[in-house]
Amino acid sequence: MRIDIKEAVKFLRENDDYLILMHASPDGDTLGCGTALCGALQRLGKKAKAVCPEEIPHKFDYLFDAVKAQTFEPKTIVCVDVADTKLLGDMKETGDKAELCIDHHISNTEYAKRTLLDADSAAACEIIYEIINELGVPFDKALANSVYTGTATDTGCFRYSNTTPRTHRIAAEMIGFGADFAGINYTMFELKTKGRIKLEQSALNTIEYYADGHIAVIYAPLSMTESIEDIDSDDIGALANIPRQIQGVDIGICAKEKKKGVYKLSLRSSKLIDCSEIAQLFGGGGHERASGCSFKGGTIEEAVAQVIKACEEACKKAGII
Amino acid sequence: MRIDIKEAVKFLRENDDYLILMHASPDGDTLGCGTALCGALQRLGKKAKAVCPEEIPHKFDYLFDAVKAQTFEPKTIVCVDVADTKLLGDMKETGDKAELCIDHHISNTEYAKRTLLDADSAAACEIIYEIINELGVPFDKALANSVYTGTATDTGCFRYSNTTPRTHRIAAEMIGFGADFAGINYTMFELKTKGRIKLEQSALNTIEYYADGHIAVIYAPLSMTESIEDIDSDDIGALANIPRQIQGVDIGICAKEKKKGVYKLSLRSSKLIDCSEIAQLFGGGGHERASGCSFKGGTIEEAVAQVIKACEEACKKAGII
Repeated sequence: MRIDIKEAVKFLRENDDYLILMHASPDGDTLGCGTALCGALQRLGKKAKAVCPEEIPHKFDYLFDAVKAQTFEPKTIVCVDVADTKLLGDMKETGDKAELCIDHHISNTEYAKRTLLDADSAAACEIIYEIINELGVPFDKALANSVYTGTATDTGCFRYSNTTPRTHRIAAEMIGFGADFAGINYTMFELKTKGRIKLEQSALNTIEYYADGHIAVIYAPLSMTESIEDIDSDDIGALANIPRQIQGVDIGICAKEKKKGVYKLSLRSSKLIDCSEIAQLFGGGGHERASGCSFKGGTIEEAVAQVIKACEEACKKAGII
Repeated sequence: MRIDIKEAVKFLRENDDYLILMHASPDGDTLGCGTALCGALQRLGKKAKAVCPEEIPHKFDYLFDAVKAQTFEPKTIVCVDVADTKLLGDMKETGDKAELCIDHHISNTEYAKRTLLDADSAAACEIIYEIINELGVPFDKALANSVYTGTATDTGCFRYSNTTPRTHRIAAEMIGFGADFAGINYTMFELKTKGRIKLEQSALNTIEYYADGHIAVIYAPLSMTESIEDIDSDDIGALANIPRQIQGVDIGICAKEKKKGVYKLSLRSSKLIDCSEIAQLFGGGGHERASGCSFKGGTIEEAVAQVIKACEEACKKAGII
């Protein structure tokens, strides 16, 4: 059943002992939602906890300043920013019993008894902001940090086309309530370890162009990634965005060697190319603009050569070359 | 003489035939100010042109949609986002005759007959926004693009600590007036030429650390920048942000050789350090977190050594080392 903000707030007022579920591979929006909603319910005198099926990266620790640890038997399950209970990993069965889901994904499967969906919100945190206001809980610095984090991270710090005037107005308010926005943005969007800088430097040395510069490839073989200290899978994953940022490139490929002889190729494309179709040719998948596929055996160059051939054909089909 | 917004607007209403000067090494804020103010004055029926002493990178071409080319003999000189006429290059003498300066740099030398200074504005475009409102000129898409560009570029897309609730509220309004914010942000913050990628790769190879990793330096000598095709002053300017992104770095320095024997050192600092104080030691200036100074003669290493010494002292004073 679809419900509106007022109905969701009525439900939240009438119930207690909340278990708030945040999705696996947690990001700033689901964690911002979970901690802000949990904190707001606690400030109303209710019992609530926010949990995630996977370990939460330490850079998000500050979000939990918004909540107190409470011991109680949960009764009411609420999912935030969770489009499908498949995204709850080991907690899928718990999620299937959700009384309420608050989300902004148009693809929401409406698995919960009640769904508050606003697909025009850039971040689910924008909906949580409305709920907190409607609940009459005054914002403090901790709640503001949580709501700010969701709006900033889901919009690439207000860069992407999903950003709306409301996103900016909420950010303005959260800064007014003391959100440590500069610290949050530095952590989320700027901070790089010395290892990450070394990795980018090494990877940039490998860039190759194909199809008159419409295709660019960057490499991260084990010989590179194992020789650099102080990097993690997130650092290597971030390389995937580099080739597509280059002027004139319609398909960016990042080829990384995950284990000896096992290669993951990540694809990013401009709006002229559907790169999920290319990944599917090799048993992979993903979204139109971001996809990936894996190869076992042979060399990294052989894997790349196969994908480039498919990319060149896609470019020809699209009339780019 | 310091004046307020109302006095500046009265002056702008009473005069005509404006020459609006934007600073050398033009950025999104000075260009956004110049084109927005010029466009607003033209919409009031006045004659105005906005000029810059240096070539303007093509990525800013869209800003000039806000203005019409007009032929006339300029009478009234207005400087925007120009803290010191030294920043006007070959147009310094013209700048010295400025009737009005509109700026947000605390280091403004008050060279103009009238100075409208608001150091609390993240971007000078925030002041131009107030002026356009006070002039009663309705915003359209072109003016909104100019004002949005200044606010976004001077705050690193709302990331930096200079961002205020007002910055976000202005951005919200400009998006409402049709600013092409997603396109602008892609161009300003993501798109890189092939040359830019090569430049970053070369510059990353030069990184040096000092003071236990609290200070990092990156170099862009002429031998590097002249050997790479397809880069402009903006690409070189963007290197300034790289060292401060590295974990543990409190002062990031980018040393570029502008002409043979002429060096510009850009400083970026964490909140523990006021880097405008450091730049001032060498005749430069800027903001607490972003400043710069110039050197003539000697080698780039000698210039860097002087600044590093001052940075180390600032780190000691701040108790960092």
